Amino acid sequence: MASTSAPVAGTAPPHVVIVGAGFGGLYCARALARHPVRITVLDQHNYHLFQPLLYQVATAALSPGQIALPIRAILRRFRNVQVLLGSVAGVDLAARRVLLDGGGRVPYDVLVLATGSRHSYFGHDEWEPLAPGLKSLDDALEMRRRLLWAYEVAEREPDPATRQAWLTFVIVGGGPTGVELAGAIAEIARHTLVRDFRHFSPAQSRVLLLEGLPRLLPAFPEDLSASAERQLRALGVEVRTGARVTEVTPGAVQVGDETIPTHTVFWSAGNAASPLGRALGVEVDRAGRVPVEPDLTLPGHPEVYVIGDLALFTHQTGQPLPALAPVAIQQGEAAAENIWRTLSGQPRARFVYRDRGNLATVGRQAGVADLGLVHLEGLVAWLAWLFVHIFWLIGFPNRVLVLLQWAWSYLTYERGARLITGQVPSALRAPAGAAATRTPRADGRQSEKAARAR
Amino acid sequence: MASTSAPVAGTAPPHVVIVGAGFGGLYCARALARHPVRITVLDQHNYHLFQPLLYQVATAALSPGQIALPIRAILRRFRNVQVLLGSVAGVDLAARRVLLDGGGRVPYDVLVLATGSRHSYFGHDEWEPLAPGLKSLDDALEMRRRLLWAYEVAEREPDPATRQAWLTFVIVGGGPTGVELAGAIAEIARHTLVRDFRHFSPAQSRVLLLEGLPRLLPAFPEDLSASAERQLRALGVEVRTGARVTEVTPGAVQVGDETIPTHTVFWSAGNAASPLGRALGVEVDRAGRVPVEPDLTLPGHPEVYVIGDLALFTHQTGQPLPALAPVAIQQGEAAAENIWRTLSGQPRARFVYRDRGNLATVGRQAGVADLGLVHLEGLVAWLAWLFVHIFWLIGFPNRVLVLLQWAWSYLTYERGARLITGQVPSALRAPAGAAATRTPRADGRQSEKAARAR
Repeated sequence: MASTSAPVAGTAPPHVVIVGAGFGGLYCARALARHPVRITVLDQHNYHLFQPLLYQVATAALSPGQIALPIRAILRRFRNVQVLLGSVAGVDLAARRVLLDGGGRVPYDVLVLATGSRHSYFGHDEWEPLAPGLKSLDDALEMRRRLLWAYEVAEREPDPATRQAWLTFVIVGGGPTGVELAGAIAEIARHTLVRDFRHFSPAQSRVLLLEGLPRLLPAFPEDLSASAERQLRALGVEVRTGARVTEVTPGAVQVGDETIPTHTVFWSAGNAASPLGRALGVEVDRAGRVPVEPDLTLPGHPEVYVIGDLALFTHQTGQPLPALAPVAIQQGEAAAENIWRTLSGQPRARFVYRDRGNLATVGRQAGVADLGLVHLEGLVAWLAWLFVHIFWLIGFPNRVLVLLQWAWSYLTYERGARLITGQVPSALRAPAGAAATRTPRADGRQSEKAARAR
Repeated sequence: MASTSAPVAGTAPPHVVIVGAGFGGLYCARALARHPVRITVLDQHNYHLFQPLLYQVATAALSPGQIALPIRAILRRFRNVQVLLGSVAGVDLAARRVLLDGGGRVPYDVLVLATGSRHSYFGHDEWEPLAPGLKSLDDALEMRRRLLWAYEVAEREPDPATRQAWLTFVIVGGGPTGVELAGAIAEIARHTLVRDFRHFSPAQSRVLLLEGLPRLLPAFPEDLSASAERQLRALGVEVRTGARVTEVTPGAVQVGDETIPTHTVFWSAGNAASPLGRALGVEVDRAGRVPVEPDLTLPGHPEVYVIGDLALFTHQTGQPLPALAPVAIQQGEAAAENIWRTLSGQPRARFVYRDRGNLATVGRQAGVADLGLVHLEGLVAWLAWLFVHIFWLIGFPNRVLVLLQWAWSYLTYERGARLITGQVPSALRAPAGAAATRTPRADGRQSEKAARAR
C-alpha cells in the first residue's frame, strides 16, 4: 500500500537490497515491490533459474532457455526495483554496505541475503573438476557435455574394457537430484540413444547410484525410499546404499576396496551454503549456514535477513529446515512481510514453515510423493510431480511451450538438446587408452541392411 | 539400388568418408546412403547446425537446441552410416587416409570434403577476439553473451560517455548476416529491453552497420540493396557504406579518421575457407578455396570430392559460386550422384547450380528477396523468408515447436533465451572506466510509480 504511514514521510523511501535471485530472493522482491520502498536485486547471473528442472537440462531434455528467465523480465513491471548483475564479495554490516567483486559498493537500509548453496565435497574439493555437481545452468551444461561426450568417445574406442569405462556413469548421492539424474541417464541409454551408435549398444551402459547412508532419499519416509530404489532398478540403475566414495580419480571411483572404472562422475551428495555466510564474520554451522532468529533476521542485526539455503532455521522443530525451494519461497515472502512490518512500525512475526509435501521423479513415468498422510509412488507420483512443477513455473510466460517440449520428449523419447557446446574439459579430450579410430564394420551385412532400409 | 551391378561383388562395399556435416556433407550422406556403400561422417561437432537461423541464437530469440540437431539422430535410420566425432588435421591423398587430430586415421575409398568456411579478418586475425564472427553455435553464444553483457555493464556505469560506448554496437560487414544481425539488435533495443533498465533507455543504443563496398548486400540487385538500407534506417540502424574498418581495439573501432567508442563489435565481413583446403597440399585461391573439376572432384583425384564453401567452382559462369546453403546442398547431392555413377561404371556428370533466389531479413517483418525476375521487399519478402526457412528445416522433428517459439517471440517481442551463460571474456569483465555501482534513484518518483503500479 502507498500508505500514508510510510516510515519517514518526505524523505527518500528506504532502500532494500536483496542479494540472490533464486526462489527466496525473487519471491521476497515480488512481495516487497508492492510497498513504497526502493529495491535493488543483485545476482551474479542475469537469470532466475527454475532449479527443480535443472536435471532435465543436464540430461538434454530441455534447453537452458526453457528453465531460466531474465531477472529483469520477471521484475520489469515493478518500477521501484532495479536489477544489477554483480558478484558479492562481502557485507560491511557496520556501514550497511554490500561489497561487490571489483570494488563496487551498494549501501542499504535493509538487506536480504539469499545466495543459496553449492554442493559440498566433504573436504575433498579436489574432486569437483572430476565430479561436477548440479546447481547452476553452467553446471548442467557441463554435465550434458560430459554425458554426450562419453558416448562419442566410446564409439571411437576399440578396446572393450576402456569403452566400458566410458559407458559407466556414476552418480554420487542418493537424494532427489541423484535419483532424478540416475533415472534420466538410464532412460537415455535404453531409449533415446538406442539406434544411434554402430560399435556398441548403449544398453551396455552402466548407471550406478551410490549413497553413503543405508537408504536413498533419506528425507522421505522409508517406504518411499524402498519404492524409489525398486523403480530405479526396474530402469536398470545399479543402486548401492551404504556405499561411501573414498577417492575420485580421472579414470575411476573408489568405494572402499572396489575400483569402478569410469570417466563420468556426477556429484549430488551434499549442500554447502554459499561462501557469503562465512564472509559475514558471524558464526556459521558446519555446512556454512547462518543461524537466524525466529523472524529470519541475523542476531543483533534486525535490518539483515537471511533466507533459503543460506539460513540455518531451527526454531520450528529443533532440526534445520531442509534446502528446498518451498522453504526458500515461504521465507522470502515472510521476510518481505517482516520488512514491511518493521518499516510501518509493527512487530515482526515468527516464521512458520508449512510443509506441503515432498516429490521426486524416477525417469519418465515413475516417482515418489510424500504428502504427509498419503504416500504415492509410480505413475501417480510422477503425475503429481508434473502437475506441481508445470503450474509452479510462475512468471514463465512460455510455460505452455515448455509443456509441449516435454510432451514431445515424452512421446518420442527424443531429447531436443543433445548438443555438445563449449569446451570439453581437456582431461576428457585426450583420454588415456582411447587410441586409433576404427573403420566401420566391413562384413557386408551393412549393404544388406542398406538394401532393406530403402 | 541394391543393384547387382555393385562394383566389386563379393567384397566389402566401398567406404565413403564425408568430412563435415553441414548442409553439403549431410545432403551427400543422405543421398548416398540409399546405395550399398559404407559411409563414415566425420565432424568436429556432434550436431548439424541450421546456419541460416544462427543470428536468431546470437540475438537470443531461439535456443541452440532449436536450430541444431544431433548428426546421429538425423542419420540414425541409415544402418550403413556411422558418425564419428573428431577433428580432421589433414588428408594423406596418396595413402587414401583421413588424419585426425590426436593421431587417429580413417582410410577411405572415396572422400568428400565439406568442411565449410570461417570468417576472414583480411590479414587482421588479431581482431578475432575483439570482434567475433558468426559461424558456429559457440560463436552465436559468444555474441549473445557480449550483447547482453554490454547492457548489464551499462546499467552499472555512472559515466555517460563510458555508458554510451557500452550501448554502441558495431557490425562490420553488410552482407546478409550483417544485415540480419543489425536489424535484430536494433529491435531488441527498441522493443524487448525497453522497460528492463532503470539508469538509461535502451533506445539510447546505437547500432552501426559498416560496409566497405559502396552498398549493402553486394550479391543482391541494386534496388534491393537500397531497399535493405532504407528498411534498416527505419529500424534506427546507422548504415555506413564505403566505410572500411582500419583498426579494432578493446574500446573502439577505427574507420579512417573516425574513432567509434564501443565494447561490442561483431564481424560479418568475409569468408575464409576451412584450413583443410590448404592442408591438402593443393593450390587454393586467396580465400583458401579448393578449385574443383566440373564434376566436383579434386584435379588428379577422381576419388576425392570437394563441395560447399570449401570448393572453388567457376565452370558455370566464370565466377565462383557463392558460399550459400543452396549451393552446398545441390553440390552434396551431385557428389553423391557422381560417386554412385563411378562405382556403378557410369561417367560422372557436370555440376550445374540452379539458382532459386536469394533472401535476407531485416528485423521482424521486413526483408528483401531476389527471385530473379521478381524482386520483393518489406513484409512480403519477410514472409517468403519465413516460409522457405520453416519448410527447409528438414529433419527437424521439432519444426512446429520452433515455429511456435518464433510466433511467441513475434507476438510478444519477448526473447526466450536472454541468458548470459559460460565465461564472459576477461577483457569485458573489468572494463576500463566502469567503476562504482550506483544506488537506484532516490528522488521519490519511484515510490509514486510503485504506488501507481499496483
